[in-house]
Amino acid sequence: MKKVRYKLVLSYDGTAYGGWQVQKNNRTIQQEVEKAIETVCGVQVRLHSSGRTDAGVHARAQVAHVDLDREILTDKLQHALNSLLDQDVRIQQVASVKSDFHARFDAVRKEYRYFIWNADIMPPFKRLYYLHVRKKLNVSAMQEAADLLTGKNDFASFSANPKREVDGTVRTLFDLSVKTRGREIVLCAVGDGFLYKMVRSLTGYLLRVGSGDVEPGQTRAILNERKRKAVVPTAAPHGLFLWRVSY
Amino acid sequence: MKKVRYKLVLSYDGTAYGGWQVQKNNRTIQQEVEKAIETVCGVQVRLHSSGRTDAGVHARAQVAHVDLDREILTDKLQHALNSLLDQDVRIQQVASVKSDFHARFDAVRKEYRYFIWNADIMPPFKRLYYLHVRKKLNVSAMQEAADLLTGKNDFASFSANPKREVDGTVRTLFDLSVKTRGREIVLCAVGDGFLYKMVRSLTGYLLRVGSGDVEPGQTRAILNERKRKAVVPTAAPHGLFLWRVSY
Repeated sequence: MKKVRYKLVLSYDGTAYGGWQVQKNNRTIQQEVEKAIETVCGVQVRLHSSGRTDAGVHARAQVAHVDLDREILTDKLQHALNSLLDQDVRIQQVASVKSDFHARFDAVRKEYRYFIWNADIMPPFKRLYYLHVRKKLNVSAMQEAADLLTGKNDFASFSANPKREVDGTVRTLFDLSVKTRGREIVLCAVGDGFLYKMVRSLTGYLLRVGSGDVEPGQTRAILNERKRKAVVPTAAPHGLFLWRVSY
Repeated sequence: MKKVRYKLVLSYDGTAYGGWQVQKNNRTIQQEVEKAIETVCGVQVRLHSSGRTDAGVHARAQVAHVDLDREILTDKLQHALNSLLDQDVRIQQVASVKSDFHARFDAVRKEYRYFIWNADIMPPFKRLYYLHVRKKLNVSAMQEAADLLTGKNDFASFSANPKREVDGTVRTLFDLSVKTRGREIVLCAVGDGFLYKMVRSLTGYLLRVGSGDVEPGQTRAILNERKRKAVVPTAAPHGLFLWRVSY
């Protein structure tokens, strides 16, 4: 039977989910969206995303594709899915695409943002989407370290599990910036791909630099170790957003 | 025994609470904060706020006072309370005040804001703090009606229970504005006091005007009825924030 491929752009609040990927004992985004598509279309489907997001991580614009066995109006599909899904998952866009489009393999560039609230008190309305850091961070030291991480590097030191990276540990980080606006600090990471928990590891490391625990000048040495060490902790998931995927 | 009076400025996310006031079968803000003060100070206390907020309503800066039987460093009290309270309630400020300061009777001006997301799709990260309205609202009609509500008026038509308003139903609305920023609409209401569910009633009415169900020109006639009618619905609580209380 001829299949029709659809591309979905999704945003979700990861707070209540065990991440993207289908799991046995946990509600996941993939599961909920597949279930909604199955309700609308009456067939079992598999949804392929640009990549997994971990438990508690959010997405502003995750991209996924799915094959259906008949054409369906994209507006109709989008509205039906949004009426079935909980409000913490929204389908922002549905488009029909060529049958060889692949949400993961065709992605050429991904952007993540990590939000930090750097003040004594966390506003209650930001608590689900920002990491709270009380100690005043040295943002220019963080940017100095970030600049040393930018480019094509072996990021094994920044993978939570470097030995299980099937595509190796070399990636190109096009940009890693540290921007402040009042008490908000936003880390923005743009790359051709990211290792397992890489953005949270980069963030964990930059937080140590910003706290004065690590000198930014040590950055190249840490990269060159190509081994995960205690100097690189993994930052909490709830400050992280998958921001954009480009094809 | 000599009592010392403290003024607290609090912000809270009302989502998980049955409103401000202590209740038997519901977690409330007043209850949680009183419990925390009792843990810190070892005495039973009563917390008096500038006014109750309903179940699901948020506060950016609620004000309350409490009497303690000994002096305590305000910074110490603030930090102790914030470490005991859940993250959805924060003590933004603690100050010692004169023994005749009263959070409710001394308030001369209150500001509420109501947040509306006027677009087809609600971003998941705003769902707890914005009312979602799909239909494109006519903001200039809303502002026209808002202008006719401004000033010293009998607001009986905009109280959820006009017969039980112990201080009568006349209030002065210093300002009622309707501002847009992209798909966001913010109603801002500033007055010397508000009746029971008055801001949500004003919002419910302005939403009907914005939807084209009611002509703004009818506003004075509705005010003059001095009776609650179906033309004035009560908007949902989760878009409403107590924004500021002035003394």
